Amino acid sequence: MLTEFELIKHCFNWPQSNDSVICAVGDDASIVRVPSGYDLVQSIDTQVADVHFPAAAPAELIAQRALRCAISDLAAMGATPQAFHLALSLPSNTNQHWLESFSTGLRDCAKEYNIVLIGGDTTSCPSLVITLQVQGLVKSGQALTRSNAQTGDDIWLSGEIGRSASALGSILKSPTTFIEKAYYYPQAQIFLGQQLVGLANSAMDISDGLLQDASHIAKASGVCLNFFKQSIPLNESAIKLHGYNAALEFALTGGDDYQLLFTAPKSAKNTLHELACIKVGQVQSKDNYWVLIDGQPFDNKKTGYQHF
Amino acid sequence: MLTEFELIKHCFNWPQSNDSVICAVGDDASIVRVPSGYDLVQSIDTQVADVHFPAAAPAELIAQRALRCAISDLAAMGATPQAFHLALSLPSNTNQHWLESFSTGLRDCAKEYNIVLIGGDTTSCPSLVITLQVQGLVKSGQALTRSNAQTGDDIWLSGEIGRSASALGSILKSPTTFIEKAYYYPQAQIFLGQQLVGLANSAMDISDGLLQDASHIAKASGVCLNFFKQSIPLNESAIKLHGYNAALEFALTGGDDYQLLFTAPKSAKNTLHELACIKVGQVQSKDNYWVLIDGQPFDNKKTGYQHF
Repeated sequence: MLTEFELIKHCFNWPQSNDSVICAVGDDASIVRVPSGYDLVQSIDTQVADVHFPAAAPAELIAQRALRCAISDLAAMGATPQAFHLALSLPSNTNQHWLESFSTGLRDCAKEYNIVLIGGDTTSCPSLVITLQVQGLVKSGQALTRSNAQTGDDIWLSGEIGRSASALGSILKSPTTFIEKAYYYPQAQIFLGQQLVGLANSAMDISDGLLQDASHIAKASGVCLNFFKQSIPLNESAIKLHGYNAALEFALTGGDDYQLLFTAPKSAKNTLHELACIKVGQVQSKDNYWVLIDGQPFDNKKTGYQHF
Repeated sequence: MLTEFELIKHCFNWPQSNDSVICAVGDDASIVRVPSGYDLVQSIDTQVADVHFPAAAPAELIAQRALRCAISDLAAMGATPQAFHLALSLPSNTNQHWLESFSTGLRDCAKEYNIVLIGGDTTSCPSLVITLQVQGLVKSGQALTRSNAQTGDDIWLSGEIGRSASALGSILKSPTTFIEKAYYYPQAQIFLGQQLVGLANSAMDISDGLLQDASHIAKASGVCLNFFKQSIPLNESAIKLHGYNAALEFALTGGDDYQLLFTAPKSAKNTLHELACIKVGQVQSKDNYWVLIDGQPFDNKKTGYQHF
């Protein structure tokens, strides 16, 4: 059995480089540079076994999903990924094979998004808990936020929603055999986020469900988001498997697809269509409700994921 | 009962400011600026209930200790604290009172060290797990690392060691009544770390025990650290309570004091004495051992804390 230090070195020491990373894993702290004229955008995300993913799922997929979900926050800000830290809490019966598989998933995802692992902490814990702190660069003052949606903006989605949520039941039933790509490999919309800088007025990624997340933009911007029900891009297989109403419910309340929700002035319409974005509503002035569907409040208490 | 969002807003929304923080808690990600000519130094630390601290300890003290331990890594790099993210995983029976007390401890410590809470994630988890990502600023290329100790350097400590480790038994026995200040309020050596920039050749904070941590400097620098046993500053009350040999053992293998261990050329001697540092050994060229005591290998397998 390798010691803690040997095991970490063995599993989390793949070749990587980024000009702005001066010192990565191995000292008391990492050291990075932020180029002049850029801001640093940072987010932290925790995933807990059997809360955010099935504990029995393959470790490689758990790692892929955890890092992709975290990177999605950088996409929502319009940032280019730079680096990340990993805090990994592991049950004492975790074996080397599991850790190697986890490391493979993490490394592959990190390479895909060109993000460098620069530090971490591994601890013993009764529960499996994965915390990822991710960071990226965006031109100073250009980061996309939730607080600048304007009355009259169109509301857009980066793609169809509800697919991951519709598959979740099957994944939970057979976590080691039902490998749903949309669930384990959500596509962080980094490229689109970068294109939205200077084009969109507000943006966020959908992690807690369209309606709940839309209310965050509405509250932060002091506006109302009115969605057009027929425009919301539902997943075909979700409709086939569960019917239209269930597919709509998955789309409105499921956040696992990590698509971007954003608002933009009408002048951006053609460019956004070219980027394959879908117009799903319009920003209105502040109302009694933060979010409407076809001008009506949505009559369902289950508007999104409540963490506890 | 407040919802998750309301509770977080209620507990983690104290007034704070720092010119380099553009956007803190409340968006997909935080936004900070790093002034031209500075590097950003970052570290992530996890503390797990009943692994790193007694779960039954007062929440305010748990928070104080967690943040201080994390900030200690910034001290070891010579950095000035800037900001931190909190990832808090809580058992479902956590009540509002506990969270308010935790938040008080965190806020008080953050104010003391002038470090701004800029983001976080709160999740449900069977175990109580606290992950803190901290960051600070240091002039470009000036951060203190472990890898530059030079043969002939003196080895120094920032203060006496072994006090927290000697108290740990009592703290574990009665976690709600035995409030050991050295254990719950370790002093992150921020001021000293800043003074060491340009003065010390290598530095780290002692979190896993003097001998184990010394071996990290030795390995990273390709040298041997030889300690003078009589010079190691033992805690008087540890000697009184447990005897000399036990106090020495606590000093060599206990990391809970978070003192700085560093090496510096002889020319720094007077300045370091003025800073109340204690000379405890000398760096030698590489040997069969990474660490020696009075020229001899230390004959004890328990050289520091192994996390799992």
